[in-house]
Amino acid sequence: MFESKKVMAFGEVMLRIAMSNYQTMEQTKDARLNFTGTGLNVLSGISHFGHETALLTQLPENRLGEAAKAEIRKLGISDKLIKQEGEHMGIYLLEQGYGNRPSEVTYLERHHSSFGLSSWEELELDNAISDSSIVHICGISLILTDATRQAALRLARQAQSLGKHVCFDFNYRPSLARDQDLLEIRKAYEEMLGYADIVIGGDRDLIELLDLPSECNQELEFSVLANYFVKKYQLLYFAGTERSYQAEQRYLTGFLISPTGMITSETFPIFIFDRVGTGDAYVAGILTGILNQWEPRKLVDFATASAVLAHTTLGDSPIVTLRQVELFLENQKIDIVR
Amino acid sequence: MFESKKVMAFGEVMLRIAMSNYQTMEQTKDARLNFTGTGLNVLSGISHFGHETALLTQLPENRLGEAAKAEIRKLGISDKLIKQEGEHMGIYLLEQGYGNRPSEVTYLERHHSSFGLSSWEELELDNAISDSSIVHICGISLILTDATRQAALRLARQAQSLGKHVCFDFNYRPSLARDQDLLEIRKAYEEMLGYADIVIGGDRDLIELLDLPSECNQELEFSVLANYFVKKYQLLYFAGTERSYQAEQRYLTGFLISPTGMITSETFPIFIFDRVGTGDAYVAGILTGILNQWEPRKLVDFATASAVLAHTTLGDSPIVTLRQVELFLENQKIDIVR
Amino acid sequence: MFESKKVMAFGEVMLRIAMSNYQTMEQTKDARLNFTGTGLNVLSGISHFGHETALLTQLPENRLGEAAKAEIRKLGISDKLIKQEGEHMGIYLLEQGYGNRPSEVTYLERHHSSFGLSSWEELELDNAISDSSIVHICGISLILTDATRQAALRLARQAQSLGKHVCFDFNYRPSLARDQDLLEIRKAYEEMLGYADIVIGGDRDLIELLDLPSECNQELEFSVLANYFVKKYQLLYFAGTERSYQAEQRYLTGFLISPTGMITSETFPIFIFDRVGTGDAYVAGILTGILNQWEPRKLVDFATASAVLAHTTLGDSPIVTLRQVELFLENQKIDIVR
Amino acid sequence: MFESKKVMAFGEVMLRIAMSNYQTMEQTKDARLNFTGTGLNVLSGISHFGHETALLTQLPENRLGEAAKAEIRKLGISDKLIKQEGEHMGIYLLEQGYGNRPSEVTYLERHHSSFGLSSWEELELDNAISDSSIVHICGISLILTDATRQAALRLARQAQSLGKHVCFDFNYRPSLARDQDLLEIRKAYEEMLGYADIVIGGDRDLIELLDLPSECNQELEFSVLANYFVKKYQLLYFAGTERSYQAEQRYLTGFLISPTGMITSETFPIFIFDRVGTGDAYVAGILTGILNQWEPRKLVDFATASAVLAHTTLGDSPIVTLRQVELFLENQKIDIVR
Amino acid sequence: MFESKKVMAFGEVMLRIAMSNYQTMEQTKDARLNFTGTGLNVLSGISHFGHETALLTQLPENRLGEAAKAEIRKLGISDKLIKQEGEHMGIYLLEQGYGNRPSEVTYLERHHSSFGLSSWEELELDNAISDSSIVHICGISLILTDATRQAALRLARQAQSLGKHVCFDFNYRPSLARDQDLLEIRKAYEEMLGYADIVIGGDRDLIELLDLPSECNQELEFSVLANYFVKKYQLLYFAGTERSYQAEQRYLTGFLISPTGMITSETFPIFIFDRVGTGDAYVAGILTGILNQWEPRKLVDFATASAVLAHTTLGDSPIVTLRQVELFLENQKIDIVR
Amino acid sequence: MFESKKVMAFGEVMLRIAMSNYQTMEQTKDARLNFTGTGLNVLSGISHFGHETALLTQLPENRLGEAAKAEIRKLGISDKLIKQEGEHMGIYLLEQGYGNRPSEVTYLERHHSSFGLSSWEELELDNAISDSSIVHICGISLILTDATRQAALRLARQAQSLGKHVCFDFNYRPSLARDQDLLEIRKAYEEMLGYADIVIGGDRDLIELLDLPSECNQELEFSVLANYFVKKYQLLYFAGTERSYQAEQRYLTGFLISPTGMITSETFPIFIFDRVGTGDAYVAGILTGILNQWEPRKLVDFATASAVLAHTTLGDSPIVTLRQVELFLENQKIDIVR
Repeated sequence: MFESKKVMAFGEVMLRIAMSNYQTMEQTKDARLNFTGTGLNVLSGISHFGHETALLTQLPENRLGEAAKAEIRKLGISDKLIKQEGEHMGIYLLEQGYGNRPSEVTYLERHHSSFGLSSWEELELDNAISDSSIVHICGISLILTDATRQAALRLARQAQSLGKHVCFDFNYRPSLARDQDLLEIRKAYEEMLGYADIVIGGDRDLIELLDLPSECNQELEFSVLANYFVKKYQLLYFAGTERSYQAEQRYLTGFLISPTGMITSETFPIFIFDRVGTGDAYVAGILTGILNQWEPRKLVDFATASAVLAHTTLGDSPIVTLRQVELFLENQKIDIVR
Repeated sequence: MFESKKVMAFGEVMLRIAMSNYQTMEQTKDARLNFTGTGLNVLSGISHFGHETALLTQLPENRLGEAAKAEIRKLGISDKLIKQEGEHMGIYLLEQGYGNRPSEVTYLERHHSSFGLSSWEELELDNAISDSSIVHICGISLILTDATRQAALRLARQAQSLGKHVCFDFNYRPSLARDQDLLEIRKAYEEMLGYADIVIGGDRDLIELLDLPSECNQELEFSVLANYFVKKYQLLYFAGTERSYQAEQRYLTGFLISPTGMITSETFPIFIFDRVGTGDAYVAGILTGILNQWEPRKLVDFATASAVLAHTTLGDSPIVTLRQVELFLENQKIDIVR
Repeated sequence: MFESKKVMAFGEVMLRIAMSNYQTMEQTKDARLNFTGTGLNVLSGISHFGHETALLTQLPENRLGEAAKAEIRKLGISDKLIKQEGEHMGIYLLEQGYGNRPSEVTYLERHHSSFGLSSWEELELDNAISDSSIVHICGISLILTDATRQAALRLARQAQSLGKHVCFDFNYRPSLARDQDLLEIRKAYEEMLGYADIVIGGDRDLIELLDLPSECNQELEFSVLANYFVKKYQLLYFAGTERSYQAEQRYLTGFLISPTGMITSETFPIFIFDRVGTGDAYVAGILTGILNQWEPRKLVDFATASAVLAHTTLGDSPIVTLRQVELFLENQKIDIVR
Repeated sequence: MFESKKVMAFGEVMLRIAMSNYQTMEQTKDARLNFTGTGLNVLSGISHFGHETALLTQLPENRLGEAAKAEIRKLGISDKLIKQEGEHMGIYLLEQGYGNRPSEVTYLERHHSSFGLSSWEELELDNAISDSSIVHICGISLILTDATRQAALRLARQAQSLGKHVCFDFNYRPSLARDQDLLEIRKAYEEMLGYADIVIGGDRDLIELLDLPSECNQELEFSVLANYFVKKYQLLYFAGTERSYQAEQRYLTGFLISPTGMITSETFPIFIFDRVGTGDAYVAGILTGILNQWEPRKLVDFATASAVLAHTTLGDSPIVTLRQVELFLENQKIDIVR
Repeated sequence: MFESKKVMAFGEVMLRIAMSNYQTMEQTKDARLNFTGTGLNVLSGISHFGHETALLTQLPENRLGEAAKAEIRKLGISDKLIKQEGEHMGIYLLEQGYGNRPSEVTYLERHHSSFGLSSWEELELDNAISDSSIVHICGISLILTDATRQAALRLARQAQSLGKHVCFDFNYRPSLARDQDLLEIRKAYEEMLGYADIVIGGDRDLIELLDLPSECNQELEFSVLANYFVKKYQLLYFAGTERSYQAEQRYLTGFLISPTGMITSETFPIFIFDRVGTGDAYVAGILTGILNQWEPRKLVDFATASAVLAHTTLGDSPIVTLRQVELFLENQKIDIVR
Repeated sequence: MFESKKVMAFGEVMLRIAMSNYQTMEQTKDARLNFTGTGLNVLSGISHFGHETALLTQLPENRLGEAAKAEIRKLGISDKLIKQEGEHMGIYLLEQGYGNRPSEVTYLERHHSSFGLSSWEELELDNAISDSSIVHICGISLILTDATRQAALRLARQAQSLGKHVCFDFNYRPSLARDQDLLEIRKAYEEMLGYADIVIGGDRDLIELLDLPSECNQELEFSVLANYFVKKYQLLYFAGTERSYQAEQRYLTGFLISPTGMITSETFPIFIFDRVGTGDAYVAGILTGILNQWEPRKLVDFATASAVLAHTTLGDSPIVTLRQVELFLENQKIDIVR
């Protein structure tokens, strides 16, 4: 249908352990294991939308690492760039909520994971981006260790210099950064923003993390702040989503800010079956739209619908296809597709 | 409570393979097998509403056919009229939707099923209807093969001549008829309508399938069109359901058109747990009401409530009892029945 | 955080057999077994809110009794007061509803359970309450057998005389009392109310069960009736919940009536995953608030939120923690807690 | 293949609750519910061997009773003779063993079951046997209550007088008879033996239960004792099975004693997947062989193979078909049947 | 460790529907879906032994086809050569046996599958083998349709002419060939044997299928017959396995016949968890050994151990790794690998 | 039956993640979570044999830690001595073997667990042993960190000085000690052996770990070596098990060496359902026998039977009761206990 172009992502793969049937850890011993991670999830979505993808990461050199690679291939992502060493992987336990009971995430040891302990040579980084149109980088790499930060920055710098799109996902988790200096983190983020042309985030990211000029205080509207941000870093797009509520119904709206202004998507009702990873489905939609050279309105509607449908599927990695999102955009009231 | 009368249905039994826990085929290997089919489903409902039923069909002569017979008996339907030959059964794979993600049905080979390859002698058809009050025939038999069409028409003609009710269910699936001539299909449908006195369908069926006079164009109201239809074919009832929406809530309303006009049921909210087969639950309600000689208003409310509750139960075959439907009609707000 | 005080409950433990995945008994052979009972459920909630608890009951002297004890300990309740004799336990089968299809409860033999056949010596009863601040008694004990009625009354009388709180839960099930004289039942209830200072119930309990003066007829507002009741029996609190509906959304509101008047909680939307036992979660919240000496408004909001969240968790026994209820009261719109 | 003849059985239907995956009740909440009972199991086997069957029993008049009837129909047994009243059913909990860990059965309340409380009129008993060739009666009916004993004896007496086969299954459970006088039980058994011509049992039954002459002491060989027994009661057949061991392998051998002597089956190795109900599979084989007028050697081999295969299938009710047993007798080493 | 070389296989992918927990189709609705097929299974084994693989086949152009591709990638097999058209896939239902109860396979419609209806151009066939060292062809392609036969023969002829190994797997299923002339089938097999240098089969294949000279009658020893066969077709290897029994224990022995004679592997005990596909695990071992240039003794031991372990893993596709087979060959008594 | 005495154990609690139905991590996402650890397992066994137990450990201060405490209470072990801090727990993934395929254990990060990072004050250690008769210490504490080693040694020294039994379990895992000096480890083990009077281990432990005099070389019989060991450290008992094989059957024999010589248990066949933790079931039997003052022969037979039965139950923690072990010792051929 369209020319296939490749997306490469650099990021951590984690093990998600989700307790079964909306139960708590105290209630059941039955769990479902999945592999997850921002980069993995974004690529899974893009792969289901019809483009080639490859993940650059380090996995443990044991049976868990092998199982992760099998899952990655299954999602349609190339495992050719993956290194294996060490024996641990970041883990989170998920107790899924129901109705107005929120889901609970419990993180286990993450800093001593294979990815956390990884080191990267310039050559292997440069090779990894050589045949990709877009390089996706997750903010967690900027915080986890020196080695992952250096690798992330090197990838972005090199990709920019080769004229590729660099998509940077804020994904700022203060809890991960506990003993690091905020100034240092900010420095890394700012360097990264200098290389990126597509940035994913929200107002909190801009306010909490960046050193914005004093006139950009919290009282300003988000759009003013975001416009300033887009111009300062000469971005192609700054994109994200907003949640809203009406009575007991939840809604999602996507936004896309370019130098020419902000457009927002249709506001879609959301029905939560599995909440985690829905933001990554949005990014997968954005990057697919950019590869497909869609105009902004189609792009933001598609990406938001991708995120909306990701709320209704099990697991963090999006598995909805291009045809399914398009069908949804055509008619949201269909019960059965035959 | 009421005198038990028997309903016989002629139709295909299919194997439904539903992936578990709202997952896609790509996500899980766990599936739940069920037997389904319009005739089977309608009889299951009627059997749970207290009447005797028997299914006339052909099943494979292997372990799958035996398992289907066991399930049919379990649903309270007699398996005495079932023939066994061949080794295949029509199959569909179901990926259940969630919230605003629709369910997806993928059909596998259906034309070479045991039922598709069946042939029928007049004597066995005549015997099959001998002790039934109502004969139910599904439109798919008119399309599948010559043999099933001939058998369906013979059954209806014979039943009419013996003064029995003939219930014909349009169930028109253009995809099944791909290489057949629409004119020929229309001819068969029109012959069938000459024998039937209870017809199940909707406006699309009347417009797409039948050769209605030019003044019955799409701009006419449905009730005018349906009235014309009821009179033309001298029907006792033309019945069906309509779906509607308010914000994110779905609703169902039943209609019942007789020579004296149209009545509609209460409009009930619906909550989808398993969408497929809910139309068959409506038909089960209609035929039960006719056997029980209920007045039209009770009949249409009961049938619609039967369809509404069928959205909340697993599988295509209705398993809600008479007492449960009646309780629902008395009070829709009860949480627990003790 | 606060000084831990102990709650003791006297009551029956039952086996709940819940069919899996919203199916009926006819549809599936897969079931989930749980232990339940008003006393057990109330203590489970209190234990998860941080206080010590102990259950006084009799269980069968077989592997089922051992399994019940293991589950009781797991919920954080002491099993030191439990006696074992006999071989049966009350049982109910649960077919969980979905959407507007109600859940169905089918009770099996209950009168010949180990608890139903138990007998109690004064000394063991007196010892059981010695180190508790609150004694909880369920109305079922007043109906089941003479022995359970005598034990319940003895416990309450003794607890009152020792200056402890006595919480009595009406829990009136006319079906259990089938062949008993209503006057006799009323007599036992009235004696019990003389000992209790915290009573759980609703308007139906007051009207159907008690011999209220003729001016308290059904036309009076509930608050007038309840005020009369609180004063007549010199209660600290009379507490319960009310269900309401708006379109298809269900809501819950708690009330708390003291000699100084009635206060009601915020009205919370409810989302039903497992309906049974939610009233017990309310009582757990009330008793926790009393132990923690919370002011009435916090008490009734906390208790109602506890009941609201109990609708979203599997099983009859509340397993939501103090932190989770407090978080919910702070922000009901959070999707994920990390 | 052969002329179909009908078998009727009179007996209790119980609910079996088997914990999942070889776990104990303490370990898991997941259970699998099945209906069971000697008569039900024997008929299930016979039905799978190609003959018509009907069960005479009383089930609760609630959803559990309805579910039992659905399962009975599914097994190919007619539910037309079943009465419904009361609300309880005998229950046993099964913790399945593995390897050298034995299975454990925990019985719950059984005397207050619907069957235990049933009463029977002569006319309904006489009607029940009218179109059967064989009437099967289980010894438990002789012990449970006066009413079940009287019904069992009446059925046997009447069946004998009509020239039908009466198959009596000792099934003596001393634990069930706890407070009954052994002499009284013996009297009932002896009366029953006067009507039966096919008896199922073992040496323990003869020694413990019957008043055998002093020369039949335990030191006599079983064959001498059994011969005496067959002659005394003028039996057509006395049949049963013997277990044996070689190192860690278990074996099963069937025996069949007629007035002309004893023959034994081939000795088959057994592999236990689900041990309960395997004796009933043996009886199903014996009665099928009698209906099919097989010579004794084929009869005993077939019945024993039926029991051997029943060790390998889940649940108490045999579901192996005639073709499967015959194939097994032809070749025990086949891995896959295609 | 060793230079990676690529294996390409041409063959049908089927859907396997296995009933859960050793139950029959009548007993359970729970099933596990897997994709299977000789070529797919052989490649899965080779991929787990460390070599690159690619499957040449046609899958349906629907969600089932997509799911199959995802599973193929997961097993480590390239899906780049797969075409998609049509909507059906061959299916078999598996009722797994236990102990001495054999597994039962029920085939559904297979001739109208996407692969059965496929057609192949010479260019795409030639491209498919261009970068492979070994081409694997399954005998079923020679029987299924003219198009699959022509494609299989073309692939083999072309591969031979390019100096590649051609591995032909007899896999003769008389039931598939029902209406075909044996002489015609034999002709195709003989042409194929002219191209192949590695052949997989057993004595039955040689005797039943081929036109061996009269002196090669059944009374000859297998080794004589096989030697004649190897020489006639100038094979590098003729390989297969033999099953044997001692008391209740089953054993497996592999054989490998080359122009220089026959060698047999160690005889290993087998423990059956999932029997289907174990022969394909043997072939995976043989081809891996050839790629690795192992000497014959290591080759046959490794391949047989691969088949032995495949009996202990779920599903038809081998998933045991090189390290696991080697560890097994070093020490068969290890309980736990840490 | 006997006077209850308390056992306290100090050790790590780990999370075990076992893949379902004998599948590998690559094959399934379904897993079963359990808590495990030598101390926990030993106490679980002792608790099921009728004695009071308490575990001294540190668990994470999050929902995983809470779930572990609930499970510990369920097993009948007191959680009063447990501290909570940190957020990680040692983890192992288990792929269960089948037949001759061994189970595979994959350890994830263990050194940064809550227990690994714990620190202990003398007072809390002294309090922990104050009311116990036996203190159990696992060798892993001597290797994990300085803090756990110091705590283990302090506990043992103090317990010895108070006249309590100290049971030390070698449990030497060279892989855990990778970067530690063997001499230093040996020093800690030797100090511990000076305090212990009951030691659990095998010949490899004595040879690999301890500095035995040169005449105790590997060629000596184990009994000579063990006798020397028992005398050198003035032990009450040195105990362990030996595995052996006959054809494909596995066997287990227990040994018990005291100053007066060695006795061995009966040799029992074993059937593996879940292999991990069976050694801990042996220790539970030994310590129970010591508390019950059984003579050595009964002690070693009971402990070995406990270990034999632990092979047949799911999970690492023994859950077989005293009655079950005794029944097994009386009759190993019983199929069903009713």
